[in-house]
Amino acid sequence: MPHINLENDFPGIRGLMAFRPETAGPLGELANILLRDTEGLSRAERELIATHVSYLNDCFYCHTSHGATACEYLDGNSALVDQVRKDYQHAPISEKLKALIGIAASVQKSGKSVRPEQVEAARALGATDKEIHDTVLIAASFCLFNRYVDGLAATTPTDLSSYAARGRQIAEKGYGTHIFTVPQPA
Amino acid sequence: MPHINLENDFPGIRGLMAFRPETAGPLGELANILLRDTEGLSRAERELIATHVSYLNDCFYCHTSHGATACEYLDGNSALVDQVRKDYQHAPISEKLKALIGIAASVQKSGKSVRPEQVEAARALGATDKEIHDTVLIAASFCLFNRYVDGLAATTPTDLSSYAARGRQIAEKGYGTHIFTVPQPA
Repeated sequence: MPHINLENDFPGIRGLMAFRPETAGPLGELANILLRDTEGLSRAERELIATHVSYLNDCFYCHTSHGATACEYLDGNSALVDQVRKDYQHAPISEKLKALIGIAASVQKSGKSVRPEQVEAARALGATDKEIHDTVLIAASFCLFNRYVDGLAATTPTDLSSYAARGRQIAEKGYGTHIFTVPQPA
Repeated sequence: MPHINLENDFPGIRGLMAFRPETAGPLGELANILLRDTEGLSRAERELIATHVSYLNDCFYCHTSHGATACEYLDGNSALVDQVRKDYQHAPISEKLKALIGIAASVQKSGKSVRPEQVEAARALGATDKEIHDTVLIAASFCLFNRYVDGLAATTPTDLSSYAARGRQIAEKGYGTHIFTVPQPA
């Protein structure tokens, strides 16, 4: 049960956003830009970074929902998403993405945990300044989202099919105001 | 030196925001709503929560700049701000604010660290659901801002007078686009 009376039954961050629409606006806009921009990192790569950081923060709602969205971009390859979630260093992804996820994992610990050598290694593998920036800000943003969801004990659905339906909706329409609607089962 | 080439000389988060104006928009809007709303928590209380969380995250730029802004709202009482930064439990602030800062300190560790008893204690001291919500989201947001600043090794001025000038400007005008201008010395 949430720590406060949200006066709605939406699950996860959606219940919090419906409770406080003033802050929901910029939070949704931030997610849309960071996770749906296609310049530099792909949408799948952005969602995989978000999924891994949310897994490190032990936020079931976030790593399951963003994992489901990543899966939509990856032709339903849930095994790949799960490997990036738990063991990205051995996943069949590019060396550049591994280096960037390593930076994101450092950010999850603290900003000061990011070492210049990590950034140099990512750059040597082809990462641009914008890609490094976006990786750090995606990781930092999920340190916000994960704490927001669990810090207020938002409702976490246990039915995994609801995450898949949401993932399809997000992949199609992004993180706009439709998050307050209920997706239809596929 | 920042980990990436920001192509500008603005200090702290302002340099990062000038580098990526698309994400600067929602980040500034989020700060404006969370730190300048006057319903429930006062602006001083909001900045004190931000300052304490930034201190726990060891982000010098953020705890110094938000401490300076809090100081503006508190008639220049920098001793009070410094006590809240380092030892809020013995500071001359309300018991309600102490309970809320305790919740913020739990959020800084992780979302799951917030215990229902903490929330109940804050409520018993008069905290509303909106105040509890805003406390959690301010704390979570500074887990983003602090990691963004230090994760990209943003420039941190060592001249403390620059923070005081900025604090005056923020207290007066908020977190809008003027953050890209340089405040005049008082």
